[in-house]
Amino acid sequence: MLIREARPGDEQAIHALVYALAEYERAPEQVTNTPEQLRIDLFEDKICDALVVESEGTIVGFALYYTSYSTWKGRCLYLEDFFVLPEYRRGGIGGELFQKVAAIARERGVKRMDWQVLEWNEPALEFYRKHEAILDPEWINGRLFFS
Amino acid sequence: MLIREARPGDEQAIHALVYALAEYERAPEQVTNTPEQLRIDLFEDKICDALVVESEGTIVGFALYYTSYSTWKGRCLYLEDFFVLPEYRRGGIGGELFQKVAAIARERGVKRMDWQVLEWNEPALEFYRKHEAILDPEWINGRLFFS
Repeated sequence: MLIREARPGDEQAIHALVYALAEYERAPEQVTNTPEQLRIDLFEDKICDALVVESEGTIVGFALYYTSYSTWKGRCLYLEDFFVLPEYRRGGIGGELFQKVAAIARERGVKRMDWQVLEWNEPALEFYRKHEAILDPEWINGRLFFS
Repeated sequence: MLIREARPGDEQAIHALVYALAEYERAPEQVTNTPEQLRIDLFEDKICDALVVESEGTIVGFALYYTSYSTWKGRCLYLEDFFVLPEYRRGGIGGELFQKVAAIARERGVKRMDWQVLEWNEPALEFYRKHEAILDPEWINGRLFFS
Protein backbone atom coordinates (compact mmCIF):
# COMPACT_ATOMS: atom_id res chain seq x y z
CA MET A 1 0.00 0.00 0.00
CA LEU A 2 1.24 3.45 -0.81
CA ILE A 3 0.20 6.93 0.28
CA ARG A 4 0.34 9.65 -2.37
CA GLU A 5 -1.15 13.04 -3.16
CA ALA A 6 -4.56 12.90 -4.84
CA ARG A 7 -4.58 13.78 -8.55
CA PRO A 8 -7.26 14.47 -11.16
CA GLY A 9 -9.11 11.24 -11.85
CA ASP A 10 -9.19 10.24 -8.16
CA GLU A 11 -12.41 12.18 -7.51
CA GLN A 12 -14.76 9.24 -8.17
CA ALA A 13 -12.90 6.99 -5.74
CA ILE A 14 -12.62 9.73 -3.11
CA HIS A 15 -16.32 10.49 -3.43
CA ALA A 16 -17.14 6.78 -2.97
CA LEU A 17 -15.07 6.77 0.24
CA VAL A 18 -16.72 9.99 1.48
CA TYR A 19 -20.04 8.23 0.98
CA ALA A 20 -18.84 5.03 2.68
CA LEU A 21 -17.66 7.04 5.71
CA ALA A 22 -20.96 8.96 5.82
CA GLU A 23 -22.80 5.61 5.81
CA TYR A 24 -20.69 4.48 8.75
CA GLU A 25 -21.51 7.80 10.41
CA ARG A 26 -25.23 7.11 9.81
CA ALA A 27 -25.76 10.13 7.59
CA PRO A 28 -25.37 9.07 3.93
CA GLU A 29 -28.40 11.17 2.94
CA GLN A 30 -26.47 14.28 3.94
CA VAL A 31 -23.90 13.81 1.16
CA THR A 32 -24.94 16.16 -1.63
CA ASN A 33 -21.44 16.87 -2.92
CA THR A 34 -20.56 15.30 -6.29
CA PRO A 35 -17.36 13.81 -7.74
CA GLU A 36 -17.28 16.64 -10.31
CA GLN A 37 -17.53 19.30 -7.60
CA LEU A 38 -14.80 17.52 -5.61
CA ARG A 39 -12.60 17.56 -8.74
CA ILE A 40 -13.04 21.32 -9.15
CA ASP A 41 -12.51 22.07 -5.44
CA LEU A 42 -9.43 19.83 -5.11
CA PHE A 43 -7.65 20.25 -8.43
CA GLU A 44 -8.88 23.48 -10.04
CA ASP A 45 -9.75 25.88 -7.23
CA LYS A 46 -7.44 24.08 -4.79
CA ILE A 47 -9.47 25.02 -1.74
CA CYS A 48 -8.54 21.72 -0.12
CA ASP A 49 -5.95 18.96 -0.56
CA ALA A 50 -6.10 15.20 -0.23
CA LEU A 51 -3.86 12.20 0.24
CA VAL A 52 -5.01 8.79 -0.94
CA VAL A 53 -4.02 5.26 0.06
CA GLU A 54 -3.58 3.00 -2.94
CA SER A 55 -3.54 -0.79 -2.86
CA GLU A 56 -2.83 -2.56 -6.16
CA GLY A 57 -4.17 0.37 -8.17
CA THR A 58 -7.32 0.80 -6.05
CA ILE A 59 -7.90 3.74 -3.72
CA VAL A 60 -8.83 2.31 -0.32
CA GLY A 61 -8.41 5.31 1.95
CA PHE A 62 -8.01 9.07 1.94
CA ALA A 63 -7.47 12.17 4.05
CA LEU A 64 -8.84 15.57 2.95
CA TYR A 65 -7.68 18.77 4.66
CA TYR A 66 -7.32 22.53 4.29
CA THR A 67 -5.76 25.49 6.06
CA SER A 68 -8.14 26.88 8.65
CA TYR A 69 -7.83 29.64 11.22
CA SER A 70 -8.05 30.06 14.96
CA THR A 71 -8.28 33.54 16.47
CA TRP A 72 -6.57 32.04 19.55
CA LYS A 73 -3.71 30.30 17.75
CA GLY A 74 -3.39 31.56 14.18
CA ARG A 75 -3.16 29.28 11.16
CA CYS A 76 -4.33 25.68 11.66
CA LEU A 77 -4.87 22.63 9.50
CA TYR A 78 -8.34 21.17 9.45
CA LEU A 79 -8.58 17.45 8.74
CA GLU A 80 -12.07 17.33 7.27
CA ASP A 81 -12.25 13.65 6.39
CA PHE A 82 -10.03 10.69 7.14
CA PHE A 83 -10.99 7.12 6.29
CA VAL A 84 -9.48 3.77 5.38
CA LEU A 85 -11.78 0.92 4.32
CA PRO A 86 -12.03 -1.48 7.30
CA GLU A 87 -10.68 -4.46 5.34
CA TYR A 88 -7.43 -2.60 4.60
CA ARG A 89 -6.73 -1.35 8.12
CA ARG A 90 -4.33 -4.01 9.25
CA GLY A 91 -0.67 -3.12 9.10
CA GLY A 92 -1.04 0.39 10.53
CA ILE A 93 -1.81 2.22 7.30
CA GLY A 94 -4.36 4.44 9.11
CA GLY A 95 -1.71 5.55 11.58
CA GLU A 96 0.71 6.19 8.75
CA LEU A 97 -1.85 8.32 6.90
CA PHE A 98 -2.66 10.29 10.06
CA GLN A 99 1.03 10.92 10.78
CA LYS A 100 1.54 12.02 7.18
CA VAL A 101 -1.19 14.66 7.57
CA ALA A 102 0.36 15.78 10.87
CA ALA A 103 3.73 16.06 9.09
CA ILE A 104 2.14 18.27 6.41
CA ALA A 105 0.62 20.42 9.17
CA ARG A 106 4.10 20.82 10.70
CA GLU A 107 5.61 21.64 7.30
CA ARG A 108 3.01 24.34 6.77
CA GLY A 109 3.99 25.79 10.13
CA VAL A 110 0.45 25.75 11.54
CA LYS A 111 -0.15 25.90 15.28
CA ARG A 112 -2.75 23.18 15.56
CA MET A 113 -4.39 20.37 13.64
CA ASP A 114 -8.15 20.00 14.17
CA TRP A 115 -10.80 17.47 13.27
CA GLN A 116 -14.06 16.08 14.61
CA VAL A 117 -15.10 12.61 15.65
CA LEU A 118 -18.54 11.27 16.55
CA GLU A 119 -18.96 10.75 20.28
CA TRP A 120 -20.07 7.12 19.79
CA ASN A 121 -17.28 6.20 17.38
CA GLU A 122 -15.22 4.36 19.99
CA PRO A 123 -12.68 2.78 17.58
CA ALA A 124 -11.89 6.24 16.17
CA LEU A 125 -11.67 7.80 19.66
CA GLU A 126 -9.29 5.00 20.67
CA PHE A 127 -7.21 5.59 17.55
CA TYR A 128 -6.89 9.32 18.29
CA ARG A 129 -6.08 8.69 21.96
CA LYS A 130 -3.27 6.39 20.83
CA HIS A 131 -1.95 9.28 18.74
CA GLU A 132 -1.96 11.54 21.81
CA ALA A 133 -4.65 13.83 20.53
CA ILE A 134 -6.63 16.13 22.82
CA LEU A 135 -10.32 15.15 22.68
CA ASP A 136 -12.61 17.97 23.77
CA PRO A 137 -16.36 17.28 24.05
CA GLU A 138 -17.23 20.73 25.38
CA TRP A 139 -18.16 22.36 22.05
CA ILE A 140 -21.44 22.05 20.19
CA ASN A 141 -21.59 22.48 16.40
CA GLY A 142 -23.85 25.26 15.19
CA ARG A 143 -25.00 25.15 11.57
CA LEU A 144 -27.11 27.08 9.11
CA PHE A 145 -27.88 25.31 5.84
CA PHE A 146 -28.43 27.17 2.60
CA SER A 147 -30.24 25.57 -0.30
CA MET B 1 -23.61 51.58 15.92
CA LEU B 2 -22.41 50.57 12.52
CA ILE B 3 -21.16 47.30 11.08
CA ARG B 4 -18.30 47.54 8.58
CA GLU B 5 -15.52 45.42 7.12
CA ALA B 6 -12.37 45.30 9.24
CA ARG B 7 -9.44 47.32 7.92
CA PRO B 8 -5.73 47.65 8.77
CA GLY B 9 -5.42 49.31 12.15
CA ASP B 10 -8.36 47.36 13.63
CA GLU B 11 -6.13 44.44 14.68
CA GLN B 12 -5.44 45.73 18.21
CA ALA B 13 -9.13 46.17 18.95
CA ILE B 14 -10.04 42.80 17.39
CA HIS B 15 -7.30 41.08 19.38
CA ALA B 16 -8.62 42.68 22.59
CA LEU B 17 -12.09 41.30 21.82
CA VAL B 18 -10.68 37.84 20.99
CA TYR B 19 -9.07 37.91 24.41
CA ALA B 20 -12.26 39.17 26.11
CA LEU B 21 -14.25 36.33 24.51
CA ALA B 22 -11.59 33.78 25.53
CA GLU B 23 -11.84 35.07 29.09
CA TYR B 24 -15.59 34.59 29.00
CA GLU B 25 -14.94 31.10 27.61
CA ARG B 26 -12.59 30.46 30.55
CA ALA B 27 -9.50 29.95 28.41
CA PRO B 28 -7.61 33.26 28.13
CA GLU B 29 -4.26 31.44 28.60
CA GLN B 30 -4.90 29.66 25.31
CA VAL B 31 -4.67 32.88 23.30
CA THR B 32 -1.16 32.96 21.83
CA ASN B 33 -2.07 34.83 18.64
CA THR B 34 -0.88 38.44 18.45
CA PRO B 35 -2.35 41.64 16.95
CA GLU B 36 0.52 41.72 14.43
CA GLN B 37 -0.16 38.14 13.30
CA LEU B 38 -3.88 38.96 13.03
CA ARG B 39 -3.00 41.96 10.84
CA ILE B 40 -0.95 39.79 8.48
CA ASP B 41 -3.55 37.00 8.33
CA LEU B 42 -6.51 39.36 7.79
CA PHE B 43 -5.09 42.11 5.62
CA GLU B 44 -1.96 40.76 3.91
CA ASP B 45 -2.43 37.03 3.42
CA LYS B 46 -6.22 37.38 3.56
CA ILE B 47 -6.77 33.88 4.92
CA CYS B 48 -9.77 35.14 6.88
CA ASP B 49 -12.10 38.14 6.89
CA ALA B 50 -13.73 40.12 9.65
CA LEU B 51 -16.59 42.50 10.26
CA VAL B 52 -16.47 44.93 13.17
CA VAL B 53 -19.16 46.77 15.12
CA GLU B 54 -18.24 50.38 15.77
CA SER B 55 -19.82 52.62 18.37
CA GLU B 56 -18.66 56.26 18.43
CA GLY B 57 -15.31 55.32 16.95
CA THR B 58 -14.73 52.35 19.28
CA ILE B 59 -14.83 48.74 18.11
CA VAL B 60 -17.21 46.90 20.43
CA GLY B 61 -17.83 43.68 18.53
CA PHE B 62 -16.56 41.57 15.64
CA ALA B 63 -17.10 38.45 13.56
CA LEU B 64 -14.18 36.61 11.94
CA TYR B 65 -14.78 33.96 9.28
CA TYR B 66 -13.23 32.09 6.35
CA THR B 67 -14.21 29.71 3.59
CA SER B 68 -14.04 26.12 4.80
CA TYR B 69 -14.90 22.82 3.18
CA SER B 70 -17.22 19.90 3.80
CA THR B 71 -16.75 16.66 1.86
CA TRP B 72 -20.51 16.14 2.32
CA LYS B 73 -21.66 19.58 1.17
CA GLY B 74 -18.84 21.39 -0.62
CA ARG B 75 -17.80 24.94 0.18
CA CYS B 76 -18.89 26.30 3.57
CA LEU B 77 -18.28 29.43 5.61
CA TYR B 78 -16.76 28.95 9.04
CA LEU B 79 -17.60 31.59 11.62
CA GLU B 80 -14.56 31.29 13.85
CA ASP B 81 -15.32 34.03 16.34
CA PHE B 82 -18.33 36.19 16.98
CA PHE B 83 -18.59 38.56 19.94
CA VAL B 84 -20.20 41.81 21.03
CA LEU B 85 -19.24 43.34 24.36
CA PRO B 86 -22.13 42.64 26.79
CA GLU B 87 -22.76 46.33 27.51
CA TYR B 88 -23.44 47.01 23.80
CA ARG B 89 -25.79 44.12 23.16
CA ARG B 90 -29.06 45.91 23.56
CA GLY B 91 -30.79 46.94 20.36
CA GLY B 92 -30.16 43.70 18.49
CA ILE B 93 -26.71 44.50 17.12
CA GLY B 94 -25.59 40.88 17.72
CA GLY B 95 -28.43 39.57 15.60
CA GLU B 96 -27.66 42.11 12.92
CA LEU B 97 -23.99 41.07 12.86
CA PHE B 98 -24.91 37.37 12.70
CA GLN B 99 -27.36 37.99 9.84
CA LYS B 100 -24.71 39.99 8.01
CA VAL B 101 -22.30 37.05 8.17
CA ALA B 102 -25.09 34.72 6.97
CA ALA B 103 -25.73 37.11 4.08
CA ILE B 104 -22.03 36.99 3.13
CA ALA B 105 -22.21 33.18 3.24
CA ARG B 106 -25.18 33.27 0.86
CA GLU B 107 -23.39 35.74 -1.44
CA ARG B 108 -20.37 33.42 -1.58
CA GLY B 109 -22.71 30.62 -2.60
CA VAL B 110 -21.62 28.27 0.16
CA LYS B 111 -23.81 25.37 1.23
CA ARG B 112 -23.54 25.77 4.97
CA MET B 113 -22.35 28.13 7.67
CA ASP B 114 -20.64 26.49 10.65
CA TRP B 115 -19.43 27.56 14.05
CA GLN B 116 -18.99 26.18 17.55
CA VAL B 117 -20.48 27.14 20.88
CA LEU B 118 -19.59 25.95 24.37
CA GLU B 119 -22.16 23.54 25.78
CA TRP B 120 -22.60 25.62 28.96
CA ASN B 121 -22.96 28.96 27.17
CA GLU B 122 -26.74 29.09 27.52
CA PRO B 123 -27.20 32.74 26.36
CA ALA B 124 -25.31 31.93 23.13
CA LEU B 125 -27.24 28.68 22.61
CA GLU B 126 -30.49 30.60 23.08
CA PHE B 127 -29.31 33.24 20.59
CA TYR B 128 -28.52 30.60 17.95
CA ARG B 129 -31.82 28.79 18.54
CA LYS B 130 -33.62 32.08 17.95
CA HIS B 131 -31.78 32.30 14.63
CA GLU B 132 -33.02 28.82 13.68
CA ALA B 133 -29.62 27.22 13.74
CA ILE B 134 -29.12 23.47 13.98
CA LEU B 135 -27.20 22.68 17.19
CA ASP B 136 -25.48 19.30 17.07
CA PRO B 137 -23.70 18.03 20.21
CA GLU B 138 -22.72 14.68 18.69
CA TRP B 139 -19.21 15.62 17.57
CA ILE B 140 -16.08 15.80 19.69
CA ASN B 141 -13.18 18.07 18.75
CA GLY B 142 -9.87 16.33 18.14
CA ARG B 143 -6.73 18.43 18.31
CA LEU B 144 -2.98 18.10 17.97
CA PHE B 145 -0.96 21.13 19.08
CA PHE B 146 2.39 22.01 17.53
CA SER B 147 4.81 24.27 19.29
